[in-house]
Amino acid sequence: MEGLGRKRWVIAEGYLPEDDRRLPRPLASHEAACILNASDREARVRIRIYFADREPAGPYERIIPPRRTLHLRFDDLQDPPIPRGTDYSSVIESDVPVVVQHTRLDARRSELALLSTVAFPVD
Amino acid sequence: MEGLGRKRWVIAEGYLPEDDRRLPRPLASHEAACILNASDREARVRIRIYFADREPAGPYERIIPPRRTLHLRFDDLQDPPIPRGTDYSSVIESDVPVVVQHTRLDARRSELALLSTVAFPVD
Amino acid sequence: MEGLGRKRWVIAEGYLPEDDRRLPRPLASHEAACILNASDREARVRIRIYFADREPAGPYERIIPPRRTLHLRFDDLQDPPIPRGTDYSSVIESDVPVVVQHTRLDARRSELALLSTVAFPVD
Amino acid sequence: MEGLGRKRWVIAEGYLPEDDRRLPRPLASHEAACILNASDREARVRIRIYFADREPAGPYERIIPPRRTLHLRFDDLQDPPIPRGTDYSSVIESDVPVVVQHTRLDARRSELALLSTVAFPVD
Repeated sequence: MEGLGRKRWVIAEGYLPEDDRRLPRPLASHEAACILNASDREARVRIRIYFADREPAGPYERIIPPRRTLHLRFDDLQDPPIPRGTDYSSVIESDVPVVVQHTRLDARRSELALLSTVAFPVD
Repeated sequence: MEGLGRKRWVIAEGYLPEDDRRLPRPLASHEAACILNASDREARVRIRIYFADREPAGPYERIIPPRRTLHLRFDDLQDPPIPRGTDYSSVIESDVPVVVQHTRLDARRSELALLSTVAFPVD
Repeated sequence: MEGLGRKRWVIAEGYLPEDDRRLPRPLASHEAACILNASDREARVRIRIYFADREPAGPYERIIPPRRTLHLRFDDLQDPPIPRGTDYSSVIESDVPVVVQHTRLDARRSELALLSTVAFPVD
Repeated sequence: MEGLGRKRWVIAEGYLPEDDRRLPRPLASHEAACILNASDREARVRIRIYFADREPAGPYERIIPPRRTLHLRFDDLQDPPIPRGTDYSSVIESDVPVVVQHTRLDARRSELALLSTVAFPVD
């Protein structure tokens, strides 16, 4: 299996809601890039973050083993972390074809809200 | 009618929220792949599930009659079932062209939350 | 302007939640196909509804004037209406190129939930 | 970098919920077009708004610097503003390739609801 999908994807929406962070991790506000590597090769993934008012951050790197999915939480990126309450976009590049879907869980209020969309392929 | 759509689709996001399961079935947390077979032929559909930390499961098989839709709930898959609280992705293959849309209803809190997106075609 | 978009679209997800119908119309549970006709010609739109267990209904017809949008609510279709609490899919055809986006507002609980995705073009 | 994406996009869904406007700005009901300009050139963006029952408004213009994202709120457009409680669609054109994602936050009830989808590219 050579892999399914594309090698470069854009998520134009990005926003980590400010949050008191006392909720259990799956229920705390977060955004994720869900990335499927259906190939039989390891995928090396590089994420670059764009902002409204400063130069891009990254690239951040992740490895996805063959035939595995990675649900990457943007609030897990470090050095530097993405600030909360700040508009951003992301560009995700992989050396093997992958499929990327974007999700946000918003828990600023007592109930939660969700959004999701497939990212836009640009290679 | 030869069918509308494509023969292979990817849903990169997958997550069945943990749930006490006492809610009526339409309101309990679930994910679905809504699949339209607009053709005049029966569609044989095979679903394969990818995880973060183990080999893929499936294929699970379903038949969709001509000119019918199937709203397949992922929590209905058996042998083996998909564990709750676990990240996954899915690849859906059909022998006639179909269209696939992904939906999650989340009822972990007292109110419900929804997400939906068209899956990504890869044939 | 010859029009923007495509002439045939599929929305694989469809579900009108059962509802006590006492809410103001914008807040009552509904699904909509938002259709933009950016052309300088009238668009004749035909909608066909597919079910899990019976033959398709329709076509339902609507006219969209030049340079106008139509946010068509599926609960407004008549002869026959789409039953609530029932899985369906829809195929939308237009004689000029249009763009179609799908939305559901769900008010079964006291709070509302939303989903939206661009439909899948198949011409 | 010549830019990522496409030069013309459609968002068929548009609706600014009526709102008492006393909420903090990030939590008040709004729709946004999130636009990434990953190129090394300034992007000149023009937005045109289509309605159900009158001629289109705009174009509204915005500049996005190189390597920057703009999360444009539709309730910030002026001369004329988009009326609340009114169906609309939008067409977004840029002189360099960009990627556009659409988001709505709905705060008509006490809890919030979210939707998002990548816009439809038409160039």
